[in-house]
Amino acid sequence: MNNSITKLFHIKYPMIQAGMIWCSGWRLASAVSNAGGLGIIGAGSMYPEVLRTHIRKCKGATAHPFAVNVPLLYPNIQEIMDIIVEEGVKIVFTSAGNPATWTQFLKEKGITVVHVIANTKFALKAEACGVDAIVAEGFEAGGHNGREETTTLCLIPMVKAAVKIPVIAAGGIASGAAMLAAFALGAVAVQIGSAFAVAEESSAHPNFKHKIINATEGDTKLQMKKLVPVRLLKNHFAELISQAEANGANTQQLAEILGRARAKLGMFEGDMEEGELEIGQVSAMLDEIKPAAQILQEIWEDFLSTKQQLQDLKF
Amino acid sequence: MNNSITKLFHIKYPMIQAGMIWCSGWRLASAVSNAGGLGIIGAGSMYPEVLRTHIRKCKGATAHPFAVNVPLLYPNIQEIMDIIVEEGVKIVFTSAGNPATWTQFLKEKGITVVHVIANTKFALKAEACGVDAIVAEGFEAGGHNGREETTTLCLIPMVKAAVKIPVIAAGGIASGAAMLAAFALGAVAVQIGSAFAVAEESSAHPNFKHKIINATEGDTKLQMKKLVPVRLLKNHFAELISQAEANGANTQQLAEILGRARAKLGMFEGDMEEGELEIGQVSAMLDEIKPAAQILQEIWEDFLSTKQQLQDLKF
Repeated sequence: MNNSITKLFHIKYPMIQAGMIWCSGWRLASAVSNAGGLGIIGAGSMYPEVLRTHIRKCKGATAHPFAVNVPLLYPNIQEIMDIIVEEGVKIVFTSAGNPATWTQFLKEKGITVVHVIANTKFALKAEACGVDAIVAEGFEAGGHNGREETTTLCLIPMVKAAVKIPVIAAGGIASGAAMLAAFALGAVAVQIGSAFAVAEESSAHPNFKHKIINATEGDTKLQMKKLVPVRLLKNHFAELISQAEANGANTQQLAEILGRARAKLGMFEGDMEEGELEIGQVSAMLDEIKPAAQILQEIWEDFLSTKQQLQDLKF
Repeated sequence: MNNSITKLFHIKYPMIQAGMIWCSGWRLASAVSNAGGLGIIGAGSMYPEVLRTHIRKCKGATAHPFAVNVPLLYPNIQEIMDIIVEEGVKIVFTSAGNPATWTQFLKEKGITVVHVIANTKFALKAEACGVDAIVAEGFEAGGHNGREETTTLCLIPMVKAAVKIPVIAAGGIASGAAMLAAFALGAVAVQIGSAFAVAEESSAHPNFKHKIINATEGDTKLQMKKLVPVRLLKNHFAELISQAEANGANTQQLAEILGRARAKLGMFEGDMEEGELEIGQVSAMLDEIKPAAQILQEIWEDFLSTKQQLQDLKF
């Protein structure tokens, strides 16, 4: 397949593995890149020097392009960006923040820049900042999410109509059928999170992976809307937040319940009751821990066969 | 087009106009049916004898099949069902309730029965009750909605995998691209609400239609989750509910703010601040009041051209 995204990233398949805290280190990123997709190291859960190690190991593990995802709301962004430049990373995905400051910095170093958004307003802003492509992420996506709660089905066509740069769809995509749906809506690539969070190469704790593959409909919920909306898997911590929200807890009270390092506690250290477990709604459809290359290949083959089925519809 | 749904209903296009309170009377239903889709009279906002009048006028206005939608939570269901049988209605869509009681009653009269669900559990239950097809409605849909908040993109493949009967996708569909996306996900037809709520033939108040076509991203929100979740367009009433919910209002307090006849006040009588305005997230993409036949034809042509574009993708 040859389109604006495979050309932009020099990859075989228009499939991108989402940069996910506590899941996507060099092992997952290099496995996806070696399989023909774009692997992404998620810098959001890494100290700067940890990130440097992951970048170096990723370079050693794959000759194919890979990227780093940088949530822009962290305090030590300059240090992270310097490491990215020093280590010769070619593609950066920015998220959770304003792309105005860093897009030009990265572009001047010859780096391809993609920004993640959840509404048309920020898609237009990112385009004006000079990013090369947009990830448009719907309400069903795991982790941090937009306040408008616009679903992937509604978001992609609106963003597609608004911008000229390529649109990558994210949120709810873990099958070739969903990938084809995203293409029907105007996307030219997909970003896949949850399905790769349970890959063998994901650094998520085995407890977390097993909880994801056992999740069913309604087991995730967008919570903490008074802080930053985040989609979480149900557990004791999520229930505490849920009750507090139902009782009208304010921002400060929610922040106190959240405390610190809850995501690490759950996703990386494996505490399934007290940890913060970020995952997408599509986790209800996942039921197996498999190698990343197999996940990618199965989605791609499903994409092709679903496309053939649609072509065969008679009129 | 010839598939399980067009054959089941004896219609030309696999496109169904949702039964919507205060919007879909005989004028809208007959216009959609005359255009080759399936028009539905929404009984939810009609006294029994008003429904009888609408059925009779619809029969006079179209020789094509049409249906009646019956929310099963109303007290006078027996009276409504008797009128449906007496007037010779051939197709009934049931929603908002348990299909166990009424499916057999209707099937024994030779009536085709479809039930609207928002999760796999109720899809299986409806299938076991003997319904002929399922409408699976996602989080982005207007009006009453499921507690799981599963989006159309995530819901359709799960329901499709669970049941053997045909699946009709609803929620977020107002374009041929979205219709094709639903087909990629496994649906064999779509139910379209918001786009027909602003049809010329819709009985919605002109103020409401204009507010819908002026709506933008984030202007609808799923509210009143402690009562029955319902997607509403932002206005003074929705803001009152929103504030009450943020402050931890309980079921009774929400019911008091809601009061009675709020939906009629807004959707039918045109009070855009105090009325309850039920509409889907996809309202952000609607920008014109047009005849129902034109809406249907434009979606169908967009479906065909999007299908062609997908076929032309090179590998």
